[in-house]
Amino acid sequence: MLRVGYPAILAAELFSGFPQGIELIPLPDSLDHDIDIDVWIPDPYPGRAIRLWPRLHGVCLVLSLMAGTEWIPGTVGPHVTICNARGAHNISTAEWTVASILAMLKYFPFYLDVQHSGQWKRRFEASARYATITGDTRPLYPPVMLEELTGKTVLLVGYGAIGKEIERMLAPFDVDLVRMARTSRAEPEIHAVVDLDGLLPRAEVVVLILPSTAESHGLIGSRQLALMPQGALLVNAARGPIVDTNALVDALNAGRIRAALDVTDPEPLPPGHPLWNCPNLLLTPHVAGSSPQFAPRSLRTAAGELRRYIDGEPLYNVVQAAM
Amino acid sequence: MLRVGYPAILAAELFSGFPQGIELIPLPDSLDHDIDIDVWIPDPYPGRAIRLWPRLHGVCLVLSLMAGTEWIPGTVGPHVTICNARGAHNISTAEWTVASILAMLKYFPFYLDVQHSGQWKRRFEASARYATITGDTRPLYPPVMLEELTGKTVLLVGYGAIGKEIERMLAPFDVDLVRMARTSRAEPEIHAVVDLDGLLPRAEVVVLILPSTAESHGLIGSRQLALMPQGALLVNAARGPIVDTNALVDALNAGRIRAALDVTDPEPLPPGHPLWNCPNLLLTPHVAGSSPQFAPRSLRTAAGELRRYIDGEPLYNVVQAAM
Repeated sequence: MLRVGYPAILAAELFSGFPQGIELIPLPDSLDHDIDIDVWIPDPYPGRAIRLWPRLHGVCLVLSLMAGTEWIPGTVGPHVTICNARGAHNISTAEWTVASILAMLKYFPFYLDVQHSGQWKRRFEASARYATITGDTRPLYPPVMLEELTGKTVLLVGYGAIGKEIERMLAPFDVDLVRMARTSRAEPEIHAVVDLDGLLPRAEVVVLILPSTAESHGLIGSRQLALMPQGALLVNAARGPIVDTNALVDALNAGRIRAALDVTDPEPLPPGHPLWNCPNLLLTPHVAGSSPQFAPRSLRTAAGELRRYIDGEPLYNVVQAAM
Repeated sequence: MLRVGYPAILAAELFSGFPQGIELIPLPDSLDHDIDIDVWIPDPYPGRAIRLWPRLHGVCLVLSLMAGTEWIPGTVGPHVTICNARGAHNISTAEWTVASILAMLKYFPFYLDVQHSGQWKRRFEASARYATITGDTRPLYPPVMLEELTGKTVLLVGYGAIGKEIERMLAPFDVDLVRMARTSRAEPEIHAVVDLDGLLPRAEVVVLILPSTAESHGLIGSRQLALMPQGALLVNAARGPIVDTNALVDALNAGRIRAALDVTDPEPLPPGHPLWNCPNLLLTPHVAGSSPQFAPRSLRTAAGELRRYIDGEPLYNVVQAAM
């Protein structure tokens, strides 16, 4: 009977859709003895999962509940098949992306500060902020209190499942969407990532939603930040190392660009790190993929892979095939 | 020659699309003499416009640059035709509405507080907030860090041009949209506002985007707030008096609901007003309709009405026909 180990902390009802004829083995946070399992569903927190690994034996298949699995190959080695929970994070991560773009263009961080001060009249500070951030210093009346997303040029760097979901959620805003992926394609037009520098000068919003790989690390450095238009918004919904943190801190402190980040490098961002206090920044602590719907969705994905595994069918979301 | 008075503070290029054969009269903030004009484009700020009115003579037509014109009939009397700038605010106000819903469901006010504290680990406070706000006290793992808009039931109270624009921008989130207007209709199904109390118990988000009239004042009082589900989000993108402020302050302080407000009653909200410090509230100081695109759009609308007026055609956006 196939032995499937899973974090004991997960609620039992999440497994109601799992195939019959398997043995579900709840795994505690730590083990003082070794245990034999065939399939491992690791804790969503890598730290906990990595601590448990040395006690696990016989694992042939890892079913991650997350989209990002970069810690797993180095932990379990090349002889194990690894699947991610492709799809489970799409909606929540895409929603966070649209939410953070709108929150920044509507100056919500500034207006929350106004709200805390209890001074309605401080709203007139917004038009000076607009002029400073965007460089649009024309005398405008009535004063500009916030910006619109509609009509802006959005560069979407990464065109996987979450990228497509972001495109779908941006559709009503009639943005000029420029897609970018590792390799170029037609229908829909997708630019190759090697064209990044050429496209940045017209990108008013840059959304990073590409995998964390050796090639993508440092993709956005000081040259790329300098190529972005004055006041452009950089959104990182992917992984921290894709952006050069020091270059980003410099660009923010210089008032060159704005940013919304759900991920950072290093992560967790330590107390006192200069990024915490940069201006024109919305920073959430790696929470974009979370939601009450996450666990049911990702366990449904895992149940489907497990059924295919038992039936000898091809798995859908293999990120590493066993050597 | 038709004399059209407009606020001198508006940039001259905004009038490039105005019809030929009129005399454009720039009006200063205040006048020490009377002036004859036929058509008046009032300053977008009612206070400034009302101060100027006693100096204006001969006005037959008022072309407001705003959607809300509630101050105008009482100022100019019944013998003047009044048009609003229907459409000029649609996009910015609808964007603010979607932005504020997403910002609240993604707990951005909380995460901005975390950001200011520089303590990454404080993200784990989010799951206790989620349980307290929504009343969903099941032990959830992984911890819930934010919520989704997708799949929520949204009650849209008001189905004019901005309401329809909000519906369009909510479409990708697959919400269960319940429409409500003064009178019921089929295709699409619109409930009558008299059914409000019956629909509130399933409304996870309530969006107010209806005109300010005697009937709509106090539409949301303590009974309506009590009918909303625990943790529901009330969004007011319309006018402050539609909500009973004292009842709202009580409901927020009791932790019963959440709110996002661009408008308040009174307005401006004075320093020290209890609303400023209510929990689970995003309050912006009547800025939702603003954007750099507002002035060009609303002047284009006014130019169209003026052309029709000159040509003796029916006007599009009459909110008061001259008696």
